[in-house]
Amino acid sequence: MASKLKIIPLGGVSEIGKNITVLEYGKDIVVIDCGLIFPDEEMLGIDLVIPDMSYLESNAERIRGILITHGHEDHIGALPFALARFKVPVYGTRLTIALIEHKLEEHKISDATLTCVDPGEKIRLGCFNIEFIKTCHSIAGAVALAITTPIGTVIHTGDFKVDYTPIDGAPMDVIRLAHYGAKGVLALLSDSTNVERPGYTQSEREIGKTFEHYFKNAQGRVIVASFASNIYRIQQVADVAIAHGRDICFQGRSLVNTAKTAISLGYLNIPEEKLVDIEKLSRMNAEKICVITTGSQGEPMSGLFRMANSSHKLNIGAGDTVIISASAIPGNERGVSRVINQLFQKGAMVVYDQMADVHVSGHACREELRLMLNLTKPRYFIPVHGEYRHLYMHAQLAEEMGVEQANIFVADIGDVVELTTNSGRISGSVPAGSVMVDGSGIGDIGNVVLKDRRLLSQDGLVTAIIVVNKQTGKLMAEPEIISRGFVYMKESEVLIQEARDMLKEQAAAFGERHQSEWACIKNNIRNSLREYFYNKTKRTPMILPIVVEIS
Amino acid sequence: MASKLKIIPLGGVSEIGKNITVLEYGKDIVVIDCGLIFPDEEMLGIDLVIPDMSYLESNAERIRGILITHGHEDHIGALPFALARFKVPVYGTRLTIALIEHKLEEHKISDATLTCVDPGEKIRLGCFNIEFIKTCHSIAGAVALAITTPIGTVIHTGDFKVDYTPIDGAPMDVIRLAHYGAKGVLALLSDSTNVERPGYTQSEREIGKTFEHYFKNAQGRVIVASFASNIYRIQQVADVAIAHGRDICFQGRSLVNTAKTAISLGYLNIPEEKLVDIEKLSRMNAEKICVITTGSQGEPMSGLFRMANSSHKLNIGAGDTVIISASAIPGNERGVSRVINQLFQKGAMVVYDQMADVHVSGHACREELRLMLNLTKPRYFIPVHGEYRHLYMHAQLAEEMGVEQANIFVADIGDVVELTTNSGRISGSVPAGSVMVDGSGIGDIGNVVLKDRRLLSQDGLVTAIIVVNKQTGKLMAEPEIISRGFVYMKESEVLIQEARDMLKEQAAAFGERHQSEWACIKNNIRNSLREYFYNKTKRTPMILPIVVEIS
Repeated sequence: MASKLKIIPLGGVSEIGKNITVLEYGKDIVVIDCGLIFPDEEMLGIDLVIPDMSYLESNAERIRGILITHGHEDHIGALPFALARFKVPVYGTRLTIALIEHKLEEHKISDATLTCVDPGEKIRLGCFNIEFIKTCHSIAGAVALAITTPIGTVIHTGDFKVDYTPIDGAPMDVIRLAHYGAKGVLALLSDSTNVERPGYTQSEREIGKTFEHYFKNAQGRVIVASFASNIYRIQQVADVAIAHGRDICFQGRSLVNTAKTAISLGYLNIPEEKLVDIEKLSRMNAEKICVITTGSQGEPMSGLFRMANSSHKLNIGAGDTVIISASAIPGNERGVSRVINQLFQKGAMVVYDQMADVHVSGHACREELRLMLNLTKPRYFIPVHGEYRHLYMHAQLAEEMGVEQANIFVADIGDVVELTTNSGRISGSVPAGSVMVDGSGIGDIGNVVLKDRRLLSQDGLVTAIIVVNKQTGKLMAEPEIISRGFVYMKESEVLIQEARDMLKEQAAAFGERHQSEWACIKNNIRNSLREYFYNKTKRTPMILPIVVEIS
Repeated sequence: MASKLKIIPLGGVSEIGKNITVLEYGKDIVVIDCGLIFPDEEMLGIDLVIPDMSYLESNAERIRGILITHGHEDHIGALPFALARFKVPVYGTRLTIALIEHKLEEHKISDATLTCVDPGEKIRLGCFNIEFIKTCHSIAGAVALAITTPIGTVIHTGDFKVDYTPIDGAPMDVIRLAHYGAKGVLALLSDSTNVERPGYTQSEREIGKTFEHYFKNAQGRVIVASFASNIYRIQQVADVAIAHGRDICFQGRSLVNTAKTAISLGYLNIPEEKLVDIEKLSRMNAEKICVITTGSQGEPMSGLFRMANSSHKLNIGAGDTVIISASAIPGNERGVSRVINQLFQKGAMVVYDQMADVHVSGHACREELRLMLNLTKPRYFIPVHGEYRHLYMHAQLAEEMGVEQANIFVADIGDVVELTTNSGRISGSVPAGSVMVDGSGIGDIGNVVLKDRRLLSQDGLVTAIIVVNKQTGKLMAEPEIISRGFVYMKESEVLIQEARDMLKEQAAAFGERHQSEWACIKNNIRNSLREYFYNKTKRTPMILPIVVEIS
């Protein structure tokens, strides 16, 4: 019993998002990451989706800590929900912890135990010895984890790329990874995001050349949109801007907050006097201005979106150069496209990823994944951070690199990968899945409600109200029909009146009824209205018949 | 007056979709294409969007004909709606006309005048002399139009690419284009879709190599998903399949129909005996089977979608090779991704565009666009078939190629580009825009209904029904509260009961009222329920208070 290590992904496999993995040995548990995923287009009205953490809740007293690899939402976003249920210490690098602090504040959680660790540092949690190893990613402070258990070391890469010329000057710590590889790694859990891409991901530094080119040629203001958390990108933009005599103005709440935090922690170096407030821009020469803003995904209400829509103090127009330093995350293509068109229409020069090298990925491509496998030479391999196809291909890649097929586990959410020093298998599963958060409701929205929202979104709704005398079944008032999202009521008086007349006729036949019959009557009303409206409009609104009895 | 040519795009500019352009000289009008566009994600429940054709309707007696460049939906999809309003002859190549016939049948329009023309053929309509010129595109039968007007020739490229080795053996007729170029072209309207891409679009024939590779190595069944209208693609798949001893089975309604039509017209050459019915597949060896299906965009209910979901007779599984011979159209990325993951999960080998050359575009890249400008050497240039950014870049490209800046018109929908032999300007605009089709309703859905659908889709709806005595204002029954898409009602009894109690309390204070006050009372009910539910759930459902008076 005590000689078995369990690795349980509660999220982050067969999906890109809500990363969370459980390591369990004897009575000790550590958790790696605790992220959220944004709802897909079918989860109407849902705010966000978090992992089902009931397994952790029922084993809360055994959890020694939560280890966070970096501060992206898909790695920290579910922490407030976890810490509201069970109090366990959280470990991460300085920027990661600062971002978590900010998030917990928003959720009014003030009693969390957060501990900063530096890359290279080691901590002990129960039977686990953990080393935080520097990696490179699209956010500062990213680490891999080497977790030494009583039966061997598990390496979890976190999200990584191999950048030999990163902006912070510190490449991935291949020496520490090789150190563990030389000693023997029991299992590797590795980022699968870019496994479809051959070769190497370009260095973050490469796109500095693009910035240099466009800043050099820009006549008016330069506005750069990027991800708020990409400190390295912001640093590059700021460096080039300052070199060309421009001051920096941050826009967009998340960017302003992150930049402030990153500057105070020393992750972002911009001289105080080069920062300028939006209020001052109107009095400055255009060629002295660089605005760094949110909105690279075309999100409604983001900085860039509002600047393109003339609903922002900073109204983009002719003479401005706008650089969208990002690529569209799947699902956001149309939004990004719309913003680009609007900016062009306003006369701005727009630079975006189809035109120039304005973005590089934060994830390792195939050759880098091979390097990771080669550095760590794991006995067991579990691809993580990918949709099923990514995990499948990463498994194939590992096999090509010499990991035995039987030792590779493409695990599903909740699967228990059970390892000993000389055997490994998926031994079962624990409760796991997705929990939808809508407003203050956590997990209370299910398929019924979502199905209704979908139905309502398609053809709207028709409510029919019939008031009857409980004893005689006689109609006590004109039937009411009210619709929303179905037809424009003011222009559909005839349609509605005809339906009302139909109801009246139906109701005339009600007569004396037992209460138990109302369900059947409601059903008849529903059917006849559905048929009537379908014949008239070829639409199928939700029909909501309501019968009120008066005694 | 008679010496002015008007070119009016009623669609297809600042958008990719619903292409329709009006050419007007003196009392004569010809229309080029008549397409639809699919609704964007904000047009909830809308089936399709067609151009506002009121300008054509009010000038119907002047329309000499509608010229169709090819049979894609964004070029023919609005024809049934046009022909229901005004009877004018339609001209196109054989496949185009066959596809239109099919479409009109579905719309029960049987009195249309459809005329087939061959590439190279010329027709006269009013003062216009029209030559149909062979081009290449992702559907067979594509043509450009050379329309000679009393003041000069207008070339409309339609959708095109320059393919020197097309599947049908007939490259774009550069000689005819050059012929007009040599004589002098007044205006060029050219496809802008791929203006962001440098170089040349690959020949359709190139991907035959990919098919060859995967068919050669396939052990089990091969399933290829592509666009139903891409006859050349289907021909290539069929040729490779037959060469490897496989029979062909078509799946998916649109593909079955198009293939049948294309075979009967000679556009698609597959020996009758190589076609096999789905019913027979179960008795055939897997390596004798090639299925060509719809669903390359991951569309729900399409052939491939159902095969991946085990809801199709043909259940894809281990041993099968699935080739998705398409790239995701913006907006469809997640759907395609989902199907790929499902197919991998079922054990199939999946080949898709990130992995191999399984698709080429049907549109010209920058060098091809340069060739078109160079062949035709137009005096005036109007970029079409593109979002604003594409039109803008195409305009820049034309300027680089020597068209005078003042002679380039980036027109908006409805703009009237007025040309004489020596002058050109945007002289005004005509009514134009988008008309939403929902069920049998054409243009009856406006912003109010769409806003309601959006609201309903987010947090659902709460209906509150209050029945009162008209004279006394006294409550005649318990207030009813019914919700849909808001909370799961069975688990929210307390929440709903509390709201009901609140309503009762409010209603107690009603007393005797004038009818005119009900609006105000309803508003109070709406506000108090909204506040109550927001405080309890942080959600904002639509609140629909209904007061029924009984005398």
